[in-house]
Amino acid sequence: MIIERIISDGLAHYSYYIGSGSEAIIIDPRRDIDVYINLAKKYNQRIIGVFETHRNEDYTIGSLNLSKLTGASIYHGSKLDFGYGEYVGEGDVFKLGSVEISVLETPGHTDESLTYTLREIGEKEVYAAFTGDSLFAGEVGRTDLYGESHIRRLSEALYESVFDKILNLGDGVLVFPGHGPGSVCGGNISVRTFTTIGYEKKTSKVLQFKDRDDFVNYKLQERFEKPPYFTRMELYNKNGPPLKDLPTPPPLKIGDLKKHADNSQIIDVRSPEAFYTAHIPGSINIWISGLPLFAGWILNYEQPIIIIKDDGQLLDPILRYLYRLGFDNIGGYLNNISEWFKSGGKYNRSGFISVEELKNRLTDNKIFLLDVRDSKTYSELGFIQGAYNIYLGYLRERLSDLPKDRDIYVYCDSGFKTGIAVSILLKAGFSSVAGVIGGFSAWVSRGYPVHRT
Amino acid sequence: MIIERIISDGLAHYSYYIGSGSEAIIIDPRRDIDVYINLAKKYNQRIIGVFETHRNEDYTIGSLNLSKLTGASIYHGSKLDFGYGEYVGEGDVFKLGSVEISVLETPGHTDESLTYTLREIGEKEVYAAFTGDSLFAGEVGRTDLYGESHIRRLSEALYESVFDKILNLGDGVLVFPGHGPGSVCGGNISVRTFTTIGYEKKTSKVLQFKDRDDFVNYKLQERFEKPPYFTRMELYNKNGPPLKDLPTPPPLKIGDLKKHADNSQIIDVRSPEAFYTAHIPGSINIWISGLPLFAGWILNYEQPIIIIKDDGQLLDPILRYLYRLGFDNIGGYLNNISEWFKSGGKYNRSGFISVEELKNRLTDNKIFLLDVRDSKTYSELGFIQGAYNIYLGYLRERLSDLPKDRDIYVYCDSGFKTGIAVSILLKAGFSSVAGVIGGFSAWVSRGYPVHRT
Amino acid sequence: MIIERIISDGLAHYSYYIGSGSEAIIIDPRRDIDVYINLAKKYNQRIIGVFETHRNEDYTIGSLNLSKLTGASIYHGSKLDFGYGEYVGEGDVFKLGSVEISVLETPGHTDESLTYTLREIGEKEVYAAFTGDSLFAGEVGRTDLYGESHIRRLSEALYESVFDKILNLGDGVLVFPGHGPGSVCGGNISVRTFTTIGYEKKTSKVLQFKDRDDFVNYKLQERFEKPPYFTRMELYNKNGPPLKDLPTPPPLKIGDLKKHADNSQIIDVRSPEAFYTAHIPGSINIWISGLPLFAGWILNYEQPIIIIKDDGQLLDPILRYLYRLGFDNIGGYLNNISEWFKSGGKYNRSGFISVEELKNRLTDNKIFLLDVRDSKTYSELGFIQGAYNIYLGYLRERLSDLPKDRDIYVYCDSGFKTGIAVSILLKAGFSSVAGVIGGFSAWVSRGYPVHRT
Amino acid sequence: MIIERIISDGLAHYSYYIGSGSEAIIIDPRRDIDVYINLAKKYNQRIIGVFETHRNEDYTIGSLNLSKLTGASIYHGSKLDFGYGEYVGEGDVFKLGSVEISVLETPGHTDESLTYTLREIGEKEVYAAFTGDSLFAGEVGRTDLYGESHIRRLSEALYESVFDKILNLGDGVLVFPGHGPGSVCGGNISVRTFTTIGYEKKTSKVLQFKDRDDFVNYKLQERFEKPPYFTRMELYNKNGPPLKDLPTPPPLKIGDLKKHADNSQIIDVRSPEAFYTAHIPGSINIWISGLPLFAGWILNYEQPIIIIKDDGQLLDPILRYLYRLGFDNIGGYLNNISEWFKSGGKYNRSGFISVEELKNRLTDNKIFLLDVRDSKTYSELGFIQGAYNIYLGYLRERLSDLPKDRDIYVYCDSGFKTGIAVSILLKAGFSSVAGVIGGFSAWVSRGYPVHRT
Repeated sequence: MIIERIISDGLAHYSYYIGSGSEAIIIDPRRDIDVYINLAKKYNQRIIGVFETHRNEDYTIGSLNLSKLTGASIYHGSKLDFGYGEYVGEGDVFKLGSVEISVLETPGHTDESLTYTLREIGEKEVYAAFTGDSLFAGEVGRTDLYGESHIRRLSEALYESVFDKILNLGDGVLVFPGHGPGSVCGGNISVRTFTTIGYEKKTSKVLQFKDRDDFVNYKLQERFEKPPYFTRMELYNKNGPPLKDLPTPPPLKIGDLKKHADNSQIIDVRSPEAFYTAHIPGSINIWISGLPLFAGWILNYEQPIIIIKDDGQLLDPILRYLYRLGFDNIGGYLNNISEWFKSGGKYNRSGFISVEELKNRLTDNKIFLLDVRDSKTYSELGFIQGAYNIYLGYLRERLSDLPKDRDIYVYCDSGFKTGIAVSILLKAGFSSVAGVIGGFSAWVSRGYPVHRT
Repeated sequence: MIIERIISDGLAHYSYYIGSGSEAIIIDPRRDIDVYINLAKKYNQRIIGVFETHRNEDYTIGSLNLSKLTGASIYHGSKLDFGYGEYVGEGDVFKLGSVEISVLETPGHTDESLTYTLREIGEKEVYAAFTGDSLFAGEVGRTDLYGESHIRRLSEALYESVFDKILNLGDGVLVFPGHGPGSVCGGNISVRTFTTIGYEKKTSKVLQFKDRDDFVNYKLQERFEKPPYFTRMELYNKNGPPLKDLPTPPPLKIGDLKKHADNSQIIDVRSPEAFYTAHIPGSINIWISGLPLFAGWILNYEQPIIIIKDDGQLLDPILRYLYRLGFDNIGGYLNNISEWFKSGGKYNRSGFISVEELKNRLTDNKIFLLDVRDSKTYSELGFIQGAYNIYLGYLRERLSDLPKDRDIYVYCDSGFKTGIAVSILLKAGFSSVAGVIGGFSAWVSRGYPVHRT
Repeated sequence: MIIERIISDGLAHYSYYIGSGSEAIIIDPRRDIDVYINLAKKYNQRIIGVFETHRNEDYTIGSLNLSKLTGASIYHGSKLDFGYGEYVGEGDVFKLGSVEISVLETPGHTDESLTYTLREIGEKEVYAAFTGDSLFAGEVGRTDLYGESHIRRLSEALYESVFDKILNLGDGVLVFPGHGPGSVCGGNISVRTFTTIGYEKKTSKVLQFKDRDDFVNYKLQERFEKPPYFTRMELYNKNGPPLKDLPTPPPLKIGDLKKHADNSQIIDVRSPEAFYTAHIPGSINIWISGLPLFAGWILNYEQPIIIIKDDGQLLDPILRYLYRLGFDNIGGYLNNISEWFKSGGKYNRSGFISVEELKNRLTDNKIFLLDVRDSKTYSELGFIQGAYNIYLGYLRERLSDLPKDRDIYVYCDSGFKTGIAVSILLKAGFSSVAGVIGGFSAWVSRGYPVHRT
Repeated sequence: MIIERIISDGLAHYSYYIGSGSEAIIIDPRRDIDVYINLAKKYNQRIIGVFETHRNEDYTIGSLNLSKLTGASIYHGSKLDFGYGEYVGEGDVFKLGSVEISVLETPGHTDESLTYTLREIGEKEVYAAFTGDSLFAGEVGRTDLYGESHIRRLSEALYESVFDKILNLGDGVLVFPGHGPGSVCGGNISVRTFTTIGYEKKTSKVLQFKDRDDFVNYKLQERFEKPPYFTRMELYNKNGPPLKDLPTPPPLKIGDLKKHADNSQIIDVRSPEAFYTAHIPGSINIWISGLPLFAGWILNYEQPIIIIKDDGQLLDPILRYLYRLGFDNIGGYLNNISEWFKSGGKYNRSGFISVEELKNRLTDNKIFLLDVRDSKTYSELGFIQGAYNIYLGYLRERLSDLPKDRDIYVYCDSGFKTGIAVSILLKAGFSSVAGVIGGFSAWVSRGYPVHRT
């Protein structure tokens, strides 16, 4: 029996290859499916099924691509009206070599959410549970995706799914969830890559609620961000996403870049430090590892995307990150921004500042200090005195909160999201913007004072 | 936290890379250590420790190589007098990023055997146990390595190690053993790649003994083969194996091959079917995946080894398999045996026969039917009427059991070990030898009668 | 400036990646175009053009696939009515970064054949010539593809193309032809991978004809085989081949294999030696490296193809070889033929014989000795006394030449084509067939007598 | 016959793998020899010889490493007293499969310089010439390495070697030199990757001198830089370099980095733009592709080297570049400089300026404009008015030329060498230093005025 976890960086998305005998199934495949095809080749197995734990909203599902290539059937929960695949429900069982896969309906994160359990044929005990976004290591799924008014109902459902169904499977059952730490689908997912029901019952904070109402109240007060691209992912995944391949955009000559710049979204994937010194006017800075989490907040699906990078940065992960979020319209890329500089192309710079300098200027009322961390981090970890908090994701909608006549200093956790924020402000016409190098981490490391509301 | 299992095919040996923060440790490294170095590069971690669960006898340990390259410390159990590394004992604790590793003395498989437990700092619960050859999925370690007279003592020790120590760690604890299915270090190791204490307690047959004496009696009647190369591995691993790199032997010209043939061990790694038709006289047939298990039975450490292969077969795994068993003296290889045939080189053939033909000849008293499966399989699964059982590993010592004047038909489970046996007999001068294609599997698949003692 | 030659094994087909500045072109791309895409990524260049030297008949052109993915224009000679792409003619010039590509019409091999010359902008001298199948290292292209009646006309044209045009470009000009040694597109192509006009003029035998008529007479007496699949390649390449991707066939269970066997073409890609011992009845033996040259002689385009292989053999090259010849209908594969044997599946064997045994039986008139080398080799190198020559490619059409009541012994150059022939004869119902191990090479190496007509 | 060119980036060093039959030789191997070993594996050939064209001075020779691993013999020219290997001289011939390699003594670049010619056995004509640093595409070797007083003598020798020996080999002879464009071993090496004697004779400027004296006078006025590390390379390559493997340095924790910083050479391999914004005080900025050319100017061989990089930058090429120059003492690396910023570590910044701003400030006498391009470029392409030229390589020796009380603006060709210069000046205590983004290229692209002496 083979169980391989495939980790999609940034989204912290876990998909699974389960093989037994001459066949295999995939749980929650991502859109760039070459990884599954290559595993099937390696193990000489035929992919016969794709099992979705739920619709998913943070990435484009690869089920249709995989089914097209392999002929595999696609299975969904029946509580959502999917445009493709087949429905399965509580108690359905599928045989795969020497194991069988059973369906457990575990609504809560979404209505159609399923948990798949794995049993060795001939054994009574459940061996493993693929819990999707119902149960994570150290966490449970968020219940706010349908909006405020559904949280109570979904949290109650999740309580029953987790406490009455999943946790009863047995302490020795392996748990393979849909996400790891860093995902936006759960608050405090642990860094442990494997876990069990027994271990979770003992160590996961949210599983210590013995009372349903306490659990529901806890979920009711939770606050998560919901990126705008979720809407498109939900639509794609419900109806079936476009059957596009991973794009192979062309390198751009400087002349072509200049020609297309106005009608495109230019993203500069270098580090914030490089961006601050010099960047193409109007470009948005998103560091590469930040693309999975922030491209969906920042980019639109209409305009072509142009990628600006440094010579040593690999193009492939950039394209995969965008493709997984459904961004198929890549106009081209500039392999080395130094070409732009050498061509005499115009560039902008921004300010930047150390925490030391910031500390010395805090009392200066010419500055406006902007904290772009999420509100939960802001309130839980504290902030720098005087900071005004707008989560990076909402910055473009709330630009009118910001003064045009003051020096805006931006900080985040460590400095990367700050690069995005600075680039958004510059593009929006703010003239004096500076990023704080090292962010709140540097501030705290220096032992500078932290304020709390 | 990163836990990566590295599977060494054939030996079914599991080693582990555990990384947290900027550091990593390795549990039970194999000799070709590039896999660990590459993981450390991938995760930007420094390998600071090598933790041995026990001396090991079925492969050459890579600890010294790894230590030489990285400066990592090597840790052993103290109940054996090692020639390198440091000793650790019950209760010793090592910090690694956000986790800590504790030592549990779990003698039984060997006296110095250890189990390492992993705990997340701040949690009371044990998260995972690295059980070496004490506890496997579906099995426990063999207790016969010190010889007949020690089995009782070791089995009693193993009972206490497993039932009183390991199984008490908690049902939700992940179990990461030293071997998977196919290993010679335990009888019936399961194909499940992950497991937990709770799952093992419920499903592992050998863990159902509630009484120590029953367990010990069960172990006392167990019978395993012990390949002769174990002696060398034990010596190597106790004192520190030779610090050689993976060899890069030269391709041989036909002329050089002829010159060196007499003083070398020639192994032909093609399929038995190809071998039967035509092979270099005196060569021993061991199919590639069979090298980890059988090279140590068949080859000696004195003469250089010459490898004969087909064009499409990869050299690298052959070299690794040999290197892991301490075979460093590789004289060269013939990339494509067709060069030999084209050169007009002499070759031998052997007979071969289908199960259908065999069935028709069974009553013919000119034939001698040789079963080279291990004695346990022979007695448990049954055999073909009239078959004389000598386990492949002992064939060379028991050639005198065999008649010189009859047609010897050889079978094994599926036909691969038969290739080895046929080649041994031919080399020993038996003139009429034939392999049964498809072996006992084919016989059973055809529904032919199976005998039992 | 970058010039990379891409060698397609077996066909000995050379295609070229030429890059300069931010752009690249491809000359004569093969159908599995990932190699060009990867080069373009490596060099950060955009593939803007595909230049065909001629229609080609020995493989499926990848131009349409490449154009679809990159938007590159496709260029052909105008003397054939292509179903896609654009025409270019004598003197047309294309700029690519710091070089320019000029068109030279060089009919002879085919009417529309072109040579592309490369010049560094600013230099008068030609730098390199991409001669397609007009001029090879040590050879010129064959002129018999249009049939007997066209050879004179085409040879005259080729003489002018080569002697009057190409050789006049200058002695220092680099020559990059369309094929290397082993190709069926020219007789005696040299093993030298690079060459120049000056070197060819001095060393190529066929270029020593000073007189046109001598050259034409030489070409008139040349004899080449023309595989039947050329017809389909010509059709594909003229009209545009099917835009399929490289197939990913499933591994087959034994049951599925049995079910599909009757309606499929089963090819067994193991060595002849393994095939002789045991093979699935009705299967055709083609060793992997023989697929590019012989699959097109043996397989049809209608029935699905099932691949039988040994565990250690790589699937990928098999699929690529078939795909390059337009075989898109792959029904599946059996990864390890031992599964068949273990399942008790029926198998056949064939005879085989050493050259020594053959020599001793030559006078036995119960045997029929079949030589399946091409007629040119047969007459030039000589043969074994009594051998009847039918080129392997025509064997199926000439089965009636062969006696049903004698033992047929087959030989070729070294033993591989013999495997194909033996499998064809067995499938056709000949009951006593044996392959000669080592073939004519072994015979000659032993110093046995060689006959000549 | 196989000829593979191995290009070592940055140094533009070409080495060659020549294989024929079952054997291969290497010409001028670099120190990281895995590339040759892998080719030998790919082609199933045995490396039997290493042929050095000359001692080399710009990189560490890999001959000893290769010989140690393969047993290959090493061959040198006899006019230098080598500490290892054997001597060969004019007319010596070596057989390799179907080709033979002959020695031609071609002094000039150095006294012991050799050209190796390749001939197909049975052909009179020379097929290819491996010209080392005697003849390049578009250039000949420099003749100043022994110092001013030897230039005339060496140039005369080179004239005879090139004009009387190499060029007489025949127009159709392929030329495989020791370097490509960008090398410091020749002035204007062309970008053409292949060439021939005929093509060179017609197009190479330096080969147009018909008169020896003209040639010698031309060489006498040539001026090249000679990096200080050449001395060590010469010593290494003469006596045999240290037999070290490619290092595998550990990632550093911030604490360890701080501890070792004072005794180490810290190199920051990010882009100049990132460096300007924030860098660890005292670190030297060398962009990755600049390491082969500039590490030898800047780094010493005594102190350990610490590498500072961005997350997305690959470590492997950095280590190879350093290893090729003999830098074996790598203390460790910081994988992601953001760790430093987050830890609150102190950092420095530098100024930077656009060409537009520079133009507006040119008349300001508070600024000091420093041009760090080599003097040849400075005089041939012109410069920005008022610029003071010190070649980057000599900057540290000429710091006293620079004013302490003015703003120093630095420019180079495109901005990368400027990063190095800025970091050197900052480390030396200059407080107001700024790099010109885009450098002289940007200045010219904008159409700003260029001055000439």
